[in-house]
Amino acid sequence: MTTAIRSEFDRGIALTQRPGEPGHYDGELDAGWQIGGGINGGLQLALAGHALSLRHGADGSHADPISISGYYLSAATPGPVDVRTELVRRGRSLSTGTASLSQDGRERLRVLASYGDLSDAEGAVHTSATPPQLPPPERCVSVADAPREMISQAALLERFDLRLDPATVGWAVGQPSGNGRIQGWFKLADGREPDPLMLLLVADALPPVTFDLGMPGWAPTVELTVHLRARPVPGWLRVVHSSRNLAGGYFEEDAEVWDESGRLVAQSRQLARAPRPQ
Amino acid sequence: MTTAIRSEFDRGIALTQRPGEPGHYDGELDAGWQIGGGINGGLQLALAGHALSLRHGADGSHADPISISGYYLSAATPGPVDVRTELVRRGRSLSTGTASLSQDGRERLRVLASYGDLSDAEGAVHTSATPPQLPPPERCVSVADAPREMISQAALLERFDLRLDPATVGWAVGQPSGNGRIQGWFKLADGREPDPLMLLLVADALPPVTFDLGMPGWAPTVELTVHLRARPVPGWLRVVHSSRNLAGGYFEEDAEVWDESGRLVAQSRQLARAPRPQ
Repeated sequence: MTTAIRSEFDRGIALTQRPGEPGHYDGELDAGWQIGGGINGGLQLALAGHALSLRHGADGSHADPISISGYYLSAATPGPVDVRTELVRRGRSLSTGTASLSQDGRERLRVLASYGDLSDAEGAVHTSATPPQLPPPERCVSVADAPREMISQAALLERFDLRLDPATVGWAVGQPSGNGRIQGWFKLADGREPDPLMLLLVADALPPVTFDLGMPGWAPTVELTVHLRARPVPGWLRVVHSSRNLAGGYFEEDAEVWDESGRLVAQSRQLARAPRPQ
Repeated sequence: MTTAIRSEFDRGIALTQRPGEPGHYDGELDAGWQIGGGINGGLQLALAGHALSLRHGADGSHADPISISGYYLSAATPGPVDVRTELVRRGRSLSTGTASLSQDGRERLRVLASYGDLSDAEGAVHTSATPPQLPPPERCVSVADAPREMISQAALLERFDLRLDPATVGWAVGQPSGNGRIQGWFKLADGREPDPLMLLLVADALPPVTFDLGMPGWAPTVELTVHLRARPVPGWLRVVHSSRNLAGGYFEEDAEVWDESGRLVAQSRQLARAPRPQ
């Protein structure tokens, strides 16, 4: 029996194992995940992360990414994609492996990651981090209200129910704050609830924080590392993107993702190239 | 003619290429880099980083790490070590590769990194990050004043001229602040000046930030990513370690390294296991 996959995200990260080739999977990058001229980096990381979840979690034990690092090598385009995985080390609580995402023999993304079981991640929490203070979703700026030219360059925005804090969207009307901070509420438009793999997408889902520095344009990711800190509960996610240092043509973009229970479920940092002056 | 290597750090990361095996290097982990039973993770990252610098920089162009991620697989011990490198992709401004550090066939560390030329990292700086405010080095707490039992477990501290801000060393006298922040001045004891490879050591050189949370003990690194943001000038470095979230047995440790010109030269984050209650 084949179960129809109803969520766009689950279709986006669907993989088929190549017969006789353990750890080698085929997938498809759908044009609906495009941003700028390529496929969204978070979706690529979730796809590679799914392959490693299948590989490490084959016996059910280490199926959750705990730390995952992706190095982006060339822009991915809509069409077939294959993912080769390699097991590096299997430990008691963590398994480490690599994944390589390619199209027509051209490598797009190389991943190195450690997997475990986020169900173990219970127990003591000592945190000075606090979730962002946001107006309720209905008083935030829906991406559906974004300028048309922005949507047309970012098909994937139609797959997100993204509600940005009005205090951090001045850039959409030509008034960037210069603070280097964009924050808001996130859900998938089709209602698919969050899980660890979806958090890999969410870490790279908001507009680049350089928009808020008055630098519109594409900001290609060099490297993105996501740490998964807890399994998210269903509901809205709160996401904060921030940057403190843009220099020499690069900037860092930190993301924090909080779930509806108020728990910090993911932290990420990426190094990206600053947009070229327009 | 053989040039004597006078700096302990340069000896620590020295490599010899195996005849007939391009990209495969031999080194030696000296007992002087031990901390809590293993070899310091920053020194290991600098050693693997040196191998990739030799590999990528063979033609002189991409010798500087720009982003480097290390996944720690097993505790390294004093003795011989070999490093295998693999080129993943050579681009115009960045080259990406992997390194695998092993002892007796047992892998200690897997690295994925992109290299470039930090001399290109000039130009516009837009930063809201500010260097830490520290008392002058002579009014900070020298590691030479640390409790004897701490030094005996951390041979490498004798190689550092580390002056910690008195405001962040309450833990040394049983009064941790609970803020999750340790900061201070850093130099190598033998006066070897900073460069990009040395910054990989510095990112993991201070005591674990969990000391300041009242959790003494060893905090093994799972993953450490360092972004090199500028080439450091000679002189003192200022280093800040901080953490905001300890949960489920893991914590993140962020490091910022500033050079004497007041420039942010490196940012890093690691995911580490929380020390076991003692």
